[in-house]
Amino acid sequence: MNLITETISRIEPIENVWLERAAARQLELTKPPGSLGRLEEIANRLCAIQRTLQPSVMRREIFVFAASHGVCAEGVSPYPAAVTAQMVLNFLGGGAAINALAKSANADLTVIDIGVDGDFTEIAPNFVKAKIAPGTKNFAEVAAMSEMEMRRAIEIGIETARAAKKNNAAIIGLGEMGIGNTTSASAITASLLGIAPEDCVGRGTGARDAMLAHKIEIVNRALTVNQPNGGDAFDVLQKVGGFEIAGLVGLCLGAAAERLAIVTDGFIATAAVALAIKICPFVHEYIFASHLSVECGHHALLEFIGQKPLFDLEMRLGEGTGAALAMNIVGAAVAAFNEMANFETAGISGKSS
Amino acid sequence: MNLITETISRIEPIENVWLERAAARQLELTKPPGSLGRLEEIANRLCAIQRTLQPSVMRREIFVFAASHGVCAEGVSPYPAAVTAQMVLNFLGGGAAINALAKSANADLTVIDIGVDGDFTEIAPNFVKAKIAPGTKNFAEVAAMSEMEMRRAIEIGIETARAAKKNNAAIIGLGEMGIGNTTSASAITASLLGIAPEDCVGRGTGARDAMLAHKIEIVNRALTVNQPNGGDAFDVLQKVGGFEIAGLVGLCLGAAAERLAIVTDGFIATAAVALAIKICPFVHEYIFASHLSVECGHHALLEFIGQKPLFDLEMRLGEGTGAALAMNIVGAAVAAFNEMANFETAGISGKSS
Repeated sequence: MNLITETISRIEPIENVWLERAAARQLELTKPPGSLGRLEEIANRLCAIQRTLQPSVMRREIFVFAASHGVCAEGVSPYPAAVTAQMVLNFLGGGAAINALAKSANADLTVIDIGVDGDFTEIAPNFVKAKIAPGTKNFAEVAAMSEMEMRRAIEIGIETARAAKKNNAAIIGLGEMGIGNTTSASAITASLLGIAPEDCVGRGTGARDAMLAHKIEIVNRALTVNQPNGGDAFDVLQKVGGFEIAGLVGLCLGAAAERLAIVTDGFIATAAVALAIKICPFVHEYIFASHLSVECGHHALLEFIGQKPLFDLEMRLGEGTGAALAMNIVGAAVAAFNEMANFETAGISGKSS
Repeated sequence: MNLITETISRIEPIENVWLERAAARQLELTKPPGSLGRLEEIANRLCAIQRTLQPSVMRREIFVFAASHGVCAEGVSPYPAAVTAQMVLNFLGGGAAINALAKSANADLTVIDIGVDGDFTEIAPNFVKAKIAPGTKNFAEVAAMSEMEMRRAIEIGIETARAAKKNNAAIIGLGEMGIGNTTSASAITASLLGIAPEDCVGRGTGARDAMLAHKIEIVNRALTVNQPNGGDAFDVLQKVGGFEIAGLVGLCLGAAAERLAIVTDGFIATAAVALAIKICPFVHEYIFASHLSVECGHHALLEFIGQKPLFDLEMRLGEGTGAALAMNIVGAAVAAFNEMANFETAGISGKSS
């Protein structure tokens, strides 16, 4: 059995009994029942994922998969394709938004070159060289990657999750960098959800009207040329995906198999989550949606994966920035659950009616 | 000139020039313009409040003002009035939700007994004894407090803000505890906004249908008996307020005078913010709304103060729990602003179109 099939076979649904035990414990804590709202749901689900009434999210890891996209040749982004490699160096130098936000969330950050067009001589503890190819092919003309490349990218994601588990991580944040990847995420969304590109192509890093119209045309062309089968996540991923997205699909499958909580990010990361859930529906129970991105396709994807985001701060940056912010919320939910006194020991009177 | 008048006279509007400088700096940072959404607005406003391009929210303080409410005699809460004093002890023992959430936000927590029915022998560095009276009078029958009591409560809030400033705090979180205080906040909201009690009385800690109807009746009675003048925040506060709410009004006035950022909490804290803004409109620019509470009156109050909350996690606990979560978001916004590289030094290509 290969790594992907074996990983999928190990993913289990969470058990209701743990949700019930956690909910019962919540009722003992010194607060009106339910008054911490969604923080209670978060803590309860973490209990079920970790099978404990003392959940921990002490060790937090955010993984930024970076890759270049052949479709950039079509002029779908206002930024040159070279920015992908430049931003990898920025991550390693500590100067990107995700560096600051990961630090403020007490999360470790690892950058994985899974397919960037550029050579990196840097050796850093938080940099993984796993380049499959210097970018995907232009999916407006041919399939983005071969089946073997796709499988390898998913495997790298699975291996990343396994390493995180060995490193005692409890919660994983999804990050990505790849100029052109909102075009890929839009094509994935259109295929998987069966919706029109017009309804899931957004401005990405800042496309103006003419470029937006062109981007929609390119997604339409990609779907016509490649005919991805929306019922088969692997087919969609291979034909119109990106290496970083395939890596994130593997990370989700691997994290769920290792019973690690997963925090989404924006549009691109959520496209990967949707593919992972399509491959194995149980992944759904390990996912915590972070924010609602400005990208119009994100809303549709969140509905598809049946998740309500934790916040909407009108962000549209990616990199794992939404995941980092959400980790603070998950951390707070767990802190309240673990650290609060109960009515009896604190000598607090309960409800009289 | 007395402390309250003097404090109000010192509150200045923030200057546009600082907002513009901060916005210009944002454009240099290695991210698509505007892509951090509301995090950018937060950082920019902090720059203007602190008059710097290197804002800091290192030192964070959450103040929980606690007080008892005479209106509890009317049976407006499912919890006995004694819970207010019990919860003060729980705060000091570290067992309440706000203890866990303040810690997870790296915020210091101070509890102020400004009017609790109960004697505390505890001596703790984070406990301030400033009891004005063992609770307000029942405002369904008479005014909640005398004018002198109200002024003293506001002064205690102002003194708290001054002490925080001396302690190098940069950001202040509003917290409160007082069984019965959603009834007071509803009466304040109805008076100040001129809306019907039906539209701003909620279930508080968990009132059932019969109690909810009764609570609405009590607020109606309070308004009929006291005839608060909605155009005069002091009159509203004295007649249907609470000591903890008056303390928070003073805290807002004092913090704005000291140019400290203020993070709201839920319904009760926002009622205090609305009163402070009514007293001095410039306070508005120092306020960061945290969450949208489940309490129905909260939405109306947020509209009144012209603020959009940062998140909605269906919380309804008070204590400053929403403020603590929001401090993490504000901290992340400031971290990104201060720590990110700019396009030039990082060698990142800009937009090509």
